[in-house]
Amino acid sequence: MRATTNEQFLADFQAMSANGATPGGGVERQAASAGDNLNRAWFHEVLEPLGARVIYDEIGNQYGLFELAPGAEYVGLGSHLDSQPLAGRFDGAYGVLAAAHAAGRVAQSGAKARYNLAVINWFNEEGSRFAPSMMGSSVFVGTLALDDAYSATDLSGVTVAEAQEEAGWAPRGEAPKLAAYAEIHVEQGKELEAAGNTIGLVTATWGAKKFQAVVSGEQGHTGSTLMADRKDALFGASLIISSVERLTHEFAAGQLQASVSQLTLEPNSPVTIAREVRFNVDVRSPSTEVLDKAQARLQEIIAAAEEESRTSVELSPTHEWALNPYPAAGVALAREVVEELGYSHQEIYTVAGHDSTNLKEVVPTVMLFIPSVDGISHNEKEFTTAEDCVAGLDVLTHVAQRLVESGCGEG
Amino acid sequence: MRATTNEQFLADFQAMSANGATPGGGVERQAASAGDNLNRAWFHEVLEPLGARVIYDEIGNQYGLFELAPGAEYVGLGSHLDSQPLAGRFDGAYGVLAAAHAAGRVAQSGAKARYNLAVINWFNEEGSRFAPSMMGSSVFVGTLALDDAYSATDLSGVTVAEAQEEAGWAPRGEAPKLAAYAEIHVEQGKELEAAGNTIGLVTATWGAKKFQAVVSGEQGHTGSTLMADRKDALFGASLIISSVERLTHEFAAGQLQASVSQLTLEPNSPVTIAREVRFNVDVRSPSTEVLDKAQARLQEIIAAAEEESRTSVELSPTHEWALNPYPAAGVALAREVVEELGYSHQEIYTVAGHDSTNLKEVVPTVMLFIPSVDGISHNEKEFTTAEDCVAGLDVLTHVAQRLVESGCGEG
Repeated sequence: MRATTNEQFLADFQAMSANGATPGGGVERQAASAGDNLNRAWFHEVLEPLGARVIYDEIGNQYGLFELAPGAEYVGLGSHLDSQPLAGRFDGAYGVLAAAHAAGRVAQSGAKARYNLAVINWFNEEGSRFAPSMMGSSVFVGTLALDDAYSATDLSGVTVAEAQEEAGWAPRGEAPKLAAYAEIHVEQGKELEAAGNTIGLVTATWGAKKFQAVVSGEQGHTGSTLMADRKDALFGASLIISSVERLTHEFAAGQLQASVSQLTLEPNSPVTIAREVRFNVDVRSPSTEVLDKAQARLQEIIAAAEEESRTSVELSPTHEWALNPYPAAGVALAREVVEELGYSHQEIYTVAGHDSTNLKEVVPTVMLFIPSVDGISHNEKEFTTAEDCVAGLDVLTHVAQRLVESGCGEG
Repeated sequence: MRATTNEQFLADFQAMSANGATPGGGVERQAASAGDNLNRAWFHEVLEPLGARVIYDEIGNQYGLFELAPGAEYVGLGSHLDSQPLAGRFDGAYGVLAAAHAAGRVAQSGAKARYNLAVINWFNEEGSRFAPSMMGSSVFVGTLALDDAYSATDLSGVTVAEAQEEAGWAPRGEAPKLAAYAEIHVEQGKELEAAGNTIGLVTATWGAKKFQAVVSGEQGHTGSTLMADRKDALFGASLIISSVERLTHEFAAGQLQASVSQLTLEPNSPVTIAREVRFNVDVRSPSTEVLDKAQARLQEIIAAAEEESRTSVELSPTHEWALNPYPAAGVALAREVVEELGYSHQEIYTVAGHDSTNLKEVVPTVMLFIPSVDGISHNEKEFTTAEDCVAGLDVLTHVAQRLVESGCGEG
C-alpha cells in the first residue's frame, strides 16, 4: 500500500499536471480528448497502489473503490479531470487527486467504517467540447438520459459515443450506489482570498440559465447588397451579444453575470453576409428574482435586435439549475471539521456549477472550496498555493472519515 | 467545330449549373474545392469543341486560346467559375460561359482578325475560401506575388498550393499576353432592373478597403469571473461589429456599405470567455472622401470598444482598391455596340470588385452588366432571365469582334 504524505500528494499533482500540459503552464484535457484520455489512464495507475479497485460506468465516470464495509453503500469523494481548452491545472483535477489521497488515508487509518469509499472522476464536467456541462454526474443522478449524453456532438460533429469508442474506453459496468458525497474544488472567485480564509463552506449555488440562440438572416454580397436590403445574422448576433454584457449593469454589482462565449456562423466568408449565427447565452445570479428579470430582458434585447437587423432569432433553453442550498447537515459537518482542525473559514456561494450541484439533489453532500489566487479560472494562470492545497486535502480527509464512520446527519 | 446558338448556350449553362449544385438551387464551387474542380474540368471539355486550345498558368487561371492571328497578342474575354458557399449560378460563371460562346462565334465568323482570342476563367475571384479575392487576376497583373497567393490558407489551414496539388491541377505554363480585355457579369444590384435597362456600361468601380481585426482579451470562467474583471474578446468584437453596421447610417444613403462576415474565436467554449476573436471588416464607397472618413470613424469605434471591453484590438489592412474609372475608350466602344444592336442601356458603377477591376489597370478594358432580379447576390436565389443572358452574350460577341479586329481605341 502506497503512503499518502502531503509531499507525495504534491508530487502526484505535479506529475498529473504534465498530462496534457500546455506551453503557458496550463493543461488542455477536454472531455475524451488526448489529454483527458492520458490523464484518466494515469489516474487509474495512481488509484490502484492506494488500495482501490478501478471501475467505469456506462457514461464513462471513473471510480476508485475502497472496500471498507463489504456490502455497504459508498461515500463518494470526487470532482472531474476534464478541463476547458488552455485551462488551469487545479480546476477539477485538484479535487479528484485530493479525493484519492483522502480516501487512501481513511482506508489506511483502519477506522471502523459503516460505508465504503468511492473516489470519482466525473466525465465531462466542463461541457466545453460536449454540452451540457456536468454530463457524467447528470447521467449518474438521472437528470440526463444516457442516450442523450452519448449523442451530444462537438463542433466538428463527433459524438460522445464516438469519442469514447475512439479512445478505447471500456469495459463499462454498474455505478456504485452512493450514501453521501463530498467534493473539494478551487473557488474560481476572490472571496476567500479577500477575507484571508483557507476553507469555504459552500452553502448554496447561484442559479444559472443557459440558452442557445440561432439568428437567421439571408446571404448576400457584402459589397453590393444595399444596407437597407440586408438581413445580416452577424449584425443581429452582435447586437444581442453586446446587450447581454451591458444588461449586467442594470443590476447591483454581483447580482448578475452574463456571457456569450461560443459562436459559429454560416457561411463564414469574407465576401458574403452571414445567413445564420448560433451562440450560447449564459446567465447566472444569486437571486431567482434577478435571474427571471434577466431572462425577460433578454427577450426584449432579442426583439430589438430582430427589428434592427431584420433577422429572426430563436432562443432555446439548454441547461439550467435553480438557486439552491447545499444540505444544512453537510455544511454543519464540514464546519465542525474545520473548527476542530483550526482552519480559518467562511460560508460561501458557488457561482460555477459543480458535480456536487447534481449530487446534492440525491444524497447528503458536502462542498468545500480552497482559495484561487486573484480568482483566475478557465485560464492557464489559475493558481492555488501548495499550503492551501494541503489544507484542503486535510479537511477532505477528515470529512470523509466522518462520513464513512457515521454518514451525514441521518443518525 | 461546335455550333454556338443561343439554345446551345442556354443548354450549356443549365448543364454547368449541375456542377456543384446545391439542394436550394444554387452552386457551391469555392476555389479549388470539389465543385470548382469539377466545373473547370467540364469547361475544358466545352472549350475544345468550340475550337480552343486549353492551357493553365502558374496560379491556375484557365485559358481557352483561339488562334485567329498567329503570333499576335490576345483579346481576353473572361470572368470566374469559382463561387461563394451556397452561391447563385450566375455570378462569374455566366460571364465565363458567355466568353466561350462569344469567342466561338467570333472565331467561326471568319472575320479578319488583328488579335487572337483568349477565354479566361480567373482563379479564385471570390476570395471566400482563400483571401484575397481576385487572386488569379491579381497575380496575372502583378499586384500579388505568386508565392503569396500559393501560401494563402483557408480556415482549416490548407494552402492554395496544397489545394491545387490535391486537385491535380497541372501542367502549368505561361499566361497569354493580352492587348485588351472584356468581361460581362450579372449586376448584383438593382439599378438596371429599376430602370428597365438590359445592359449596364460600367464606368467606374467603388473604392473598397478591407481589414482584419484581432481582438485580444483574456480567458476566464463565464460564470465566476466578475464582470468588472473580464476582458471579453467576443464582447469587444460585438461592439465593433454592431457599430460598423450603424456607421453606414452616418452617411447619405448609398454612400457607404460596411460589413463583417467572417469571424473565428478562441477557445469557442460555452463556459470560457473568449481570449481572442478575429474578423474581417469590408468598407466600400463611391466617394474617396467618404471612404477615408469611414476609416477614421472605424478607428474611433475600435478605441471605444477597447475601452468598454478592456481588450486590445489590432486592425490590419488586407486588400483595397481605389475608386477608379474604367477606361473611357472601352465604355465608348461598348456604347457603340449596344446602340447598334438596339439594347436599352445605361452607365453604371460596380460596387463589387471584379477581375476587370485588376485588368483595367494594365490593358484597355470593357466591363458589361446584365440585370439581377431583385439584386440578390451571393445567395442561391440569385437569378437573371434567359432573355437577358442571351442579350449579354450578343453584346459581348460584338464587343469581342470589334476588339479582335481593331483593338480598343488605340488605332
